[in-house]
Amino acid sequence: MKFGGTSVADLERIRRVARLVAAEVADGRKVAVVVSAMAGKTNELVAWTDGAGEASQGLSSSDDEYDTVVASGEQVTAGLLAMTLRNIGVSARSWLGWQIPILTDEAHGRARIEEIPPENLIGAMDRGEVAVIAGFQGVTKGGRMTTLGRGGSDTTAVAIAAAIKADRCDIYTDVDGVYTTDPRIEAKARRLAQISYEEMLEMASLGAKVLHTRSVEMAMAHGVPVRVLSSFIEPGQSEGRGTMVCDEEEIVEKRIVSGVAYSRDEAKISLFGLPDHPGVSSEIFGRLADANVNVDMIVQSHARSEGAANMEFTVGKRDAQRAVDIVRSAQSSIGFDDVVLDEDVAKVSVIGVGMRSHAGVAKTMFGALAEKGVNIQVISTSEIKISVLIDAAYTELAVRALHAAYGLDRL
Amino acid sequence: MKFGGTSVADLERIRRVARLVAAEVADGRKVAVVVSAMAGKTNELVAWTDGAGEASQGLSSSDDEYDTVVASGEQVTAGLLAMTLRNIGVSARSWLGWQIPILTDEAHGRARIEEIPPENLIGAMDRGEVAVIAGFQGVTKGGRMTTLGRGGSDTTAVAIAAAIKADRCDIYTDVDGVYTTDPRIEAKARRLAQISYEEMLEMASLGAKVLHTRSVEMAMAHGVPVRVLSSFIEPGQSEGRGTMVCDEEEIVEKRIVSGVAYSRDEAKISLFGLPDHPGVSSEIFGRLADANVNVDMIVQSHARSEGAANMEFTVGKRDAQRAVDIVRSAQSSIGFDDVVLDEDVAKVSVIGVGMRSHAGVAKTMFGALAEKGVNIQVISTSEIKISVLIDAAYTELAVRALHAAYGLDRL
Repeated sequence: MKFGGTSVADLERIRRVARLVAAEVADGRKVAVVVSAMAGKTNELVAWTDGAGEASQGLSSSDDEYDTVVASGEQVTAGLLAMTLRNIGVSARSWLGWQIPILTDEAHGRARIEEIPPENLIGAMDRGEVAVIAGFQGVTKGGRMTTLGRGGSDTTAVAIAAAIKADRCDIYTDVDGVYTTDPRIEAKARRLAQISYEEMLEMASLGAKVLHTRSVEMAMAHGVPVRVLSSFIEPGQSEGRGTMVCDEEEIVEKRIVSGVAYSRDEAKISLFGLPDHPGVSSEIFGRLADANVNVDMIVQSHARSEGAANMEFTVGKRDAQRAVDIVRSAQSSIGFDDVVLDEDVAKVSVIGVGMRSHAGVAKTMFGALAEKGVNIQVISTSEIKISVLIDAAYTELAVRALHAAYGLDRL
Repeated sequence: MKFGGTSVADLERIRRVARLVAAEVADGRKVAVVVSAMAGKTNELVAWTDGAGEASQGLSSSDDEYDTVVASGEQVTAGLLAMTLRNIGVSARSWLGWQIPILTDEAHGRARIEEIPPENLIGAMDRGEVAVIAGFQGVTKGGRMTTLGRGGSDTTAVAIAAAIKADRCDIYTDVDGVYTTDPRIEAKARRLAQISYEEMLEMASLGAKVLHTRSVEMAMAHGVPVRVLSSFIEPGQSEGRGTMVCDEEEIVEKRIVSGVAYSRDEAKISLFGLPDHPGVSSEIFGRLADANVNVDMIVQSHARSEGAANMEFTVGKRDAQRAVDIVRSAQSSIGFDDVVLDEDVAKVSVIGVGMRSHAGVAKTMFGALAEKGVNIQVISTSEIKISVLIDAAYTELAVRALHAAYGLDRL
């Protein structure tokens, strides 16, 4: 069982979590619980480290100390939950990253788990003790604390589940599962009982904030069945709740398309009048990569004028101005007429493993959008998803049109 | 160097501390720093554990988790100070109790240090790295976190100094040394350049809040020279500051009396008409000891009526009502006429190792008090101190009279 910061934000919610854990124990299960820091605590700690490191401007030599400071948040929650569990008669103890140990590499602030010897946890659970584990943290072989970076507690939960060969990893969160699309946009959105790892990965990277990409990758690699469910259910009522993320083969209800995702965190950069010779793309995207700007969709088209081309690509909104500056600073060496930034765009995607074996998915998509008068600016595809970039004003309209076009509103 | 919670209460003060440390390093010293939690943080953490453990009413089985939660405060400060030091160009790293390790017994919440292998710290310091140590915490041989109880960071500092055979242990605090008496009461009080361990111990147990008793005991046992000085001095200006707590033999300026201490945290309980036979005292104080009530001064006197005695004893104010209840509940089995509580009392003490070899110290004390019309209710003595219990209204008057009587206002 994994509980995020909102689920353990104060003592009242921690008591709620304890009752959920107690109900699983009462059902005869051996339970390990992974907890995040109380909501807001990590930000407080990070702000302090920013202050302490202010003149260092991100000096990486301080990252080991950053981890020592920030990891304290999960330590507090783990201790408090263990106390609360004992308080309601459930045997429990807290486990910190260095106590298990959760061995990581030395990439402080974004460490990767290398190994989790399961003996300590399994021993405790076999003695009937709930293992309450501080998420997000690990330890190097040299004994320094590390943290796993954003979404780290989900990763801890999946890694622990894999290490102890758990039957299931339940991620409790503030939504009651994975939906066919955002219910705030489409009231007919419905909860999926199951979704494949691959689809969940696409959903996560396309803006659905239910699970962090890294934890899904790890679950897929180790075949850990992950269930996403609401932490607001009543104790003992978890049966049949939420969405199971699992292997494609285990999906009972086969679908061609499983969901419609969208992201408003997009910016389109257009270059006009590029010289049409080899090496131009490589120079542009090389410079952006060097500056750690993540480029998503790319389309290149020949302009009517002889030997010149236009290019459009998208980046995250927060990188947009920086990307434009980088491109512009290379204008003389690359040689192009103009660069234009458009932040008024959104990306809408349909996702489904069924696309692999079914033709016509793209045709349905483009047809549905055309029917509503939605103009497609850029297209990108993978084996199990099709994304289009559109004018942001049409986002909700497009999402609803696609949700209906694939019959996702019907059971 | 040890810095308490007030000295590291926010980032600005942590930067101040870093500059003090940097100045010592610049003077060519190898430095280990022990830090407390930021002021207020420990109380916040303790309040959470109180909430999490509320139904358990002090269930000791949760104390290991209490320690896990509470120890996080010092962890944060240690990381932040290490970052800040690096930031101003001083090589540093944080050390948590389990990393050094500071091995303790398993008495969670009030653990005693058993062993500190010095190799890790000495290795780091020999490499020119400031060792920033989280105070107040340790680890059991089984790998659980422990805390040392109140005053724990002072104890950590002295224990570390003993383990690494430091030349000196500097305790930075919010006063600039140990005074002949409380300067808020007697403006002529003067800072002592030196004080013996024994005197410091009496001062600490008699109400002077400069150093915790336990840390002084440990310093005495290991012969660690401890200096108390203000954390508000300018960097590089520590020479000749503060008060050195050291062995009696090293004291240059010999005195008969070194200081006058007082405590208002006293309550007097009087029992009238006690049966005058063996076993009565044992029963009363046995019951109080069983309830963890600490009894300080005791005096017994025969009443005029045949075979009956009166008894007076003092306890801390917070135990007073409980002590009365315990005594009263035993009234029928012990047999006495009445019990009376008086909380309007104070204890005033004179302390000095010179008393051992000088007669007349008590005579001077009683004479000075009589001259000012201060009535003495109870007297208790040890080899190097005399304490009297008086009406609380006379506290300041008595302190000033005694300070003058022993010439403490003169250099």
